[in-house]
Amino acid sequence: MKALAILGSTGSIGTSTLEIVSGLPQQFRVVALAAGSNLDRLAEQVRQYRPALVAVACESSARELVRRLGSAAPEVCWGPDGLRQVAAESGADMVVSAIVGAAGLVPTMAAVLAGKDLALANKESLVMAGELITREARARGVRILPVDSEHSAIFQCLGGNGAREVRRLVLTASGGPFRTRPRGTFATITPEEALRHPTWSMGKKVTIDSATLMNKGLEVIEARWLFGLPVRQVDVIIHPQSIIHSLVEYVDGSLLAQLGVPDMRVPIQYALTYPERHENAVPRLALDRLAGLTFELVDHEKFPCLDLAYEAAGTGGSAPAVLNAANEVAVHQFLACRIGFDEIATVIRKALDAVPGRSLGSTQDVLEVDREVRERLENH
Amino acid sequence: MKALAILGSTGSIGTSTLEIVSGLPQQFRVVALAAGSNLDRLAEQVRQYRPALVAVACESSARELVRRLGSAAPEVCWGPDGLRQVAAESGADMVVSAIVGAAGLVPTMAAVLAGKDLALANKESLVMAGELITREARARGVRILPVDSEHSAIFQCLGGNGAREVRRLVLTASGGPFRTRPRGTFATITPEEALRHPTWSMGKKVTIDSATLMNKGLEVIEARWLFGLPVRQVDVIIHPQSIIHSLVEYVDGSLLAQLGVPDMRVPIQYALTYPERHENAVPRLALDRLAGLTFELVDHEKFPCLDLAYEAAGTGGSAPAVLNAANEVAVHQFLACRIGFDEIATVIRKALDAVPGRSLGSTQDVLEVDREVRERLENH
Repeated sequence: MKALAILGSTGSIGTSTLEIVSGLPQQFRVVALAAGSNLDRLAEQVRQYRPALVAVACESSARELVRRLGSAAPEVCWGPDGLRQVAAESGADMVVSAIVGAAGLVPTMAAVLAGKDLALANKESLVMAGELITREARARGVRILPVDSEHSAIFQCLGGNGAREVRRLVLTASGGPFRTRPRGTFATITPEEALRHPTWSMGKKVTIDSATLMNKGLEVIEARWLFGLPVRQVDVIIHPQSIIHSLVEYVDGSLLAQLGVPDMRVPIQYALTYPERHENAVPRLALDRLAGLTFELVDHEKFPCLDLAYEAAGTGGSAPAVLNAANEVAVHQFLACRIGFDEIATVIRKALDAVPGRSLGSTQDVLEVDREVRERLENH
Repeated sequence: MKALAILGSTGSIGTSTLEIVSGLPQQFRVVALAAGSNLDRLAEQVRQYRPALVAVACESSARELVRRLGSAAPEVCWGPDGLRQVAAESGADMVVSAIVGAAGLVPTMAAVLAGKDLALANKESLVMAGELITREARARGVRILPVDSEHSAIFQCLGGNGAREVRRLVLTASGGPFRTRPRGTFATITPEEALRHPTWSMGKKVTIDSATLMNKGLEVIEARWLFGLPVRQVDVIIHPQSIIHSLVEYVDGSLLAQLGVPDMRVPIQYALTYPERHENAVPRLALDRLAGLTFELVDHEKFPCLDLAYEAAGTGGSAPAVLNAANEVAVHQFLACRIGFDEIATVIRKALDAVPGRSLGSTQDVLEVDREVRERLENH
């Protein structure tokens, strides 16, 4: 039985993870949960899964959670140190890293340093500090299992094959809600429009990233570190049906693709049960009812964020961390109606140009770059 | 450097195999070739690849080949014993079994008994004697690597995963030239029409099998033995574009598919180089130029041969050998304009009903069933 700690338990990945745990009670037990401000859901989860340790955002939330749970309350910690405790000190065999954004970096690294296998949904930690994290993981024999549907697809298509035999990885993208919208109207896109994603139900930050294709840009960088290939061997293709979750093209002209209904439970469960597979309640894909699977090239003029990600990845060092921080700020500003949809890329472009590149020797260095970018952009 | 013996070197699989050998001169050398009556091509192949041993159909062909090659002539043998020598006594590490039809059984078994790894294109040998061949292969640690594009696809999608985690294998079928033709007109199909296959260029027998979907039926039985799954876990789906060469559906709802341009060199090369992959001159698949990948259920009323194959596989014992022999006779009769296209299934149906089922203890038993069916049908 695998002991799990879940960082971000009340988000969409976290709740799907717990659903999988409920479906496979012989396989998993939950030893720790960390959540932000959704105390209602967290309290429910604690009652149902009985973790020994729980982390929340701040001390007052911790007190409130203890009050609500009464005698059923586990040990409750809070803040960054609470996240670290859940990641590193909860006795978990595997840490599900499902906090959204840069906040996932420190606890993710803490889990790796503590030798915990990772089911990684927090792509930002690999974007910001991919070299550091993968180096530490290798040194400790820590497995990093992708939770993103695209990276899980590639992981499955690689099936243990070496990177040497790969011609390229092909990440598929739904194209988001604005795939067919004329580029000239992008300045008038409202947050509400951008939050309506055609296929997946996700958090706000990820949904906006999916509308700008920055999500794919971050995934390109994540793939680079997860699979040890240069970004020039990582391509993106639009696949509006979201049935093929990504592909691997081998040097001999053979391609492997992973497909299925768009349901996050499949990649999450595979990360949890790897190398095994188990039955579940995910609906089966009816191949004969598919209308036709199509692919399109990305319109790079419409979606400049993707090129920015390739550029940052190519530059290396601190550039991907700058990209990530600037994107988080820009998405936040867009959601607050402070900038237009088309200005998200402009904000990132300026940040990449303005912040001097440097090499990153530690998580501390990464966090400093992150802070610098945020300060610069917020004071702007 | 792997030493290859090729049974059926002048056919489409054989010539593609030699093309691959030419492209990877560091990987392979050809130690033996066996061909039927195409002495022109065989003589050319001998001059180019310099095998030490060559087999032809009969003694007069052997003499003619020696005459043509003069001082460049290798050792030349003939007939069934010639095939056996090429399969078992040529010093090959791997035998490419690419003779079409029941004639492939004896040399294929000879290769297995001699402990040679098999690159298997002759599906009939597994259809007729799958249990015997796979048992002997297991006992000798012989690897049977599929050459059929569908089975290669499944082999690649399995990537070493156990059958226990497979929900089903899904063999794709182009649907052949009569997929959209009204069933009522099937009696009037001419051999010429049936020989025009939309996607692949193959020999006559295989092309007719592809038009009746018996090809898929034989592949279902072949898959059953190659991958150790009951036929009820082997499905067939029509995929007119022939881009996805087959799929594996796992118990967790994830499907893996292998795709690429329809080019036999990919599966042949993978069988030869497995577990490695090497570059080649096969055109790359341009995903964005695909018109749309679709799937349809099989029309079982239109293509009764497929159900006959499932039935024979379910019955087991000698039934698949009866099916195979009856099909070979019926295809021959159809090509000779002695029966209609729609009567191919009728001939097979009658043979399955008429020939008493028995268990098969040896290749000899299999050959007796084969002979009995042919005699019965030809004297009919």
